[in-house]
Amino acid sequence: MYQPVTAEIISIGDELLYGQILDTNSKWLSEEMDKIGIRVVRKTTIGDDKESMRQAFVAASEKVNIVLMTGGLGPTKDDLTKNVLADFFGSQLVLFPQALEDVKRLFESRGRELSDTNRAQAYLPSNCQYIHNEVGTAPGMWFEEKGTIWMSMPGVPHEMKHLMEKAVIPRLKEKFTLPVIYHKLVKTVGIGESWLSDIIGTWEDQLPSHIRLAYLPSLGEVKLRLTGFGENQEAITREVDEQIGSLLPLIEPYVYGYNNDTLSSAIGHLLVQKGKTLALAESCSGGYISHLVTGIPGSSEYFNGAVVPYHNVFKESILGVLETTLVSHGAVSEETVREMAKQVRLKFNADYGLSSSGVAGPGGGTASKPVGLVWIACDDGKSCKTRKLQLTQDRTVNIHLTAVAALNLLRETVIQKSN
Amino acid sequence: MYQPVTAEIISIGDELLYGQILDTNSKWLSEEMDKIGIRVVRKTTIGDDKESMRQAFVAASEKVNIVLMTGGLGPTKDDLTKNVLADFFGSQLVLFPQALEDVKRLFESRGRELSDTNRAQAYLPSNCQYIHNEVGTAPGMWFEEKGTIWMSMPGVPHEMKHLMEKAVIPRLKEKFTLPVIYHKLVKTVGIGESWLSDIIGTWEDQLPSHIRLAYLPSLGEVKLRLTGFGENQEAITREVDEQIGSLLPLIEPYVYGYNNDTLSSAIGHLLVQKGKTLALAESCSGGYISHLVTGIPGSSEYFNGAVVPYHNVFKESILGVLETTLVSHGAVSEETVREMAKQVRLKFNADYGLSSSGVAGPGGGTASKPVGLVWIACDDGKSCKTRKLQLTQDRTVNIHLTAVAALNLLRETVIQKSN
Repeated sequence: MYQPVTAEIISIGDELLYGQILDTNSKWLSEEMDKIGIRVVRKTTIGDDKESMRQAFVAASEKVNIVLMTGGLGPTKDDLTKNVLADFFGSQLVLFPQALEDVKRLFESRGRELSDTNRAQAYLPSNCQYIHNEVGTAPGMWFEEKGTIWMSMPGVPHEMKHLMEKAVIPRLKEKFTLPVIYHKLVKTVGIGESWLSDIIGTWEDQLPSHIRLAYLPSLGEVKLRLTGFGENQEAITREVDEQIGSLLPLIEPYVYGYNNDTLSSAIGHLLVQKGKTLALAESCSGGYISHLVTGIPGSSEYFNGAVVPYHNVFKESILGVLETTLVSHGAVSEETVREMAKQVRLKFNADYGLSSSGVAGPGGGTASKPVGLVWIACDDGKSCKTRKLQLTQDRTVNIHLTAVAALNLLRETVIQKSN
Repeated sequence: MYQPVTAEIISIGDELLYGQILDTNSKWLSEEMDKIGIRVVRKTTIGDDKESMRQAFVAASEKVNIVLMTGGLGPTKDDLTKNVLADFFGSQLVLFPQALEDVKRLFESRGRELSDTNRAQAYLPSNCQYIHNEVGTAPGMWFEEKGTIWMSMPGVPHEMKHLMEKAVIPRLKEKFTLPVIYHKLVKTVGIGESWLSDIIGTWEDQLPSHIRLAYLPSLGEVKLRLTGFGENQEAITREVDEQIGSLLPLIEPYVYGYNNDTLSSAIGHLLVQKGKTLALAESCSGGYISHLVTGIPGSSEYFNGAVVPYHNVFKESILGVLETTLVSHGAVSEETVREMAKQVRLKFNADYGLSSSGVAGPGGGTASKPVGLVWIACDDGKSCKTRKLQLTQDRTVNIHLTAVAALNLLRETVIQKSN
């Protein structure tokens, strides 16, 4: 019977034990291990404390094939992890010239002097394989000891992810014979989890046992992850894709992309495909839609720009919304978002104008226009689609849901235009 | 010397190991324990698996005074936790009539029939104290065994929080004499962790053992957390505040706030205080600064608006940057951000104009203007401060660091104006 390759994740840092920060690293690591068929059997979180670390290392070495460690590095933590690992493996810290070179170059590139504490970061346990961290000063350390693979990484999320994607995941795939696994994410927007499950329930029931479905909901979106297990990559890939083929007709209007697509990257693809451009007029979303759009590399190809006319007077003076509209209908109204979308499209000479106006909260609500009321509009030069949203009492959630709904309205408009 | 009361949090559920859900329960529990002076020394996450649970219970019983368990309950999980606990304590499951009453009443109130699986939920280990869960079917179980207090709760966040607030936290306060504790966060920007530690090292060394310092770095910022332990709230509060009083002169220029302040909320306070207003011209930051500013409730009081002229042509047509400037110096230049800051201030009739222009990457870099080169400017009507940044190769990181640096430049400008 197939013995799964097992892993433990050890997160190190007092701030995790005190609840000062949410441990998103270990969730990300769990997902990545799951994707390549490595089974995470335990996660342990401990403080910056030698004895706790030693105990965790002993417990892990008895249990798993792979130990992934994050945190406990960096000058102010005295690089505790590497010292405890050196003791644990009976090795000692030695200077790794390449590590010193790399940290020097990093500081030069940032036009800063190398401090002694940073120089000390180039001293690593003699039995480790040094792995260059291109985006930070704390290096990656790979050990093969006691029949287990140990990987120590900094706790800063983007540094940890960089090391995992660049070095650790490829090495693990070489080291172990992993089961043939095929994942595919189907990304939906504009429909809730329970509605989705009502629609696809019968399809879900006929899935074979070696294809698993997971619902991964997030604000305004639901991802469906299909995971197929098998012996033959080509066969399992075909089988999963066929299942998706029979799923799509049920939920077509809600599907914006697959795998690593985001709503804004999917919209980017659409606009590039059609050679169209976009401009934004954001009131209650306050620049968040613009941030999502410009977060995509190459967005300058289709994104002309945005205006955030946070005060009504600038909806007139800068965007050219008519005073009469604002006076007779108010800033949070269908009429106003219509004009905002049209005017911003003209001002930025774009094919599509997208706008938002609402009461984000917590203040500013009235009986007729309560907190959470939002209007969005998308103007394509021929017509203008509008939508009214009644969202939550939470400002942050309202801003996020407004952006998702607006981008989805744009997506629908762009797609329909092409039909 | 004072011996802290210690706790371990055990989170149970396969979905946590597969990375399908983020474990927010253990963060919340950590915060609550920290607030009442109980030190969480370890968190362990395991799957719905008897042997893993038994191992975790053994390890915990050797280490801590209190074990808080969430998950592994409910019909679909076969109430695994309570079975393993019964074995572990050498007790057996017996019917708790009150538990049966309570679950019956819950089902009646929801107009549903009691199923056998739900009836089975009223069978609990004979040595536990039953704690009524008023918002769900899985009961709370309190044990006092092996010199340790064990509390088992369902994994559903609002059920767990309900049990903690209603029963567990009050009981823990009775059971243990807890220390008086006082936390204060000092929030800094514009200085790296290692430089900070070089500056305050001697101050750090003179801290008494009952006042702990933690560095909490994040992109572009470092938080310093001081935690004082004592017998007298007033005394320890005074003592920690005095230590901060002697810390501040060393790092004054970098300190933007305390505790829950964020850089953008601190700037909000400053602008409200001085009755000043802000406008933004964002190129490479693409609306992210605007998003950070408008994320603060009440920001409409001081934020007039923003323009994101993503294409150079709109830096001219909408923002009024001179064509000659763009042609002779380029969009990513000190001269361009100067004009952007001044023009946006005028357009939005604001007291301060803040601007950014740079090469966010990954594309668009040249020998003279590489990826990561960013210019920012802040214009206050009398003068204009500019700053050149050389950031990373990562687009997301560059956008974030640009926003932090720009908001900090604004902060410095506003503060200096007032001196």
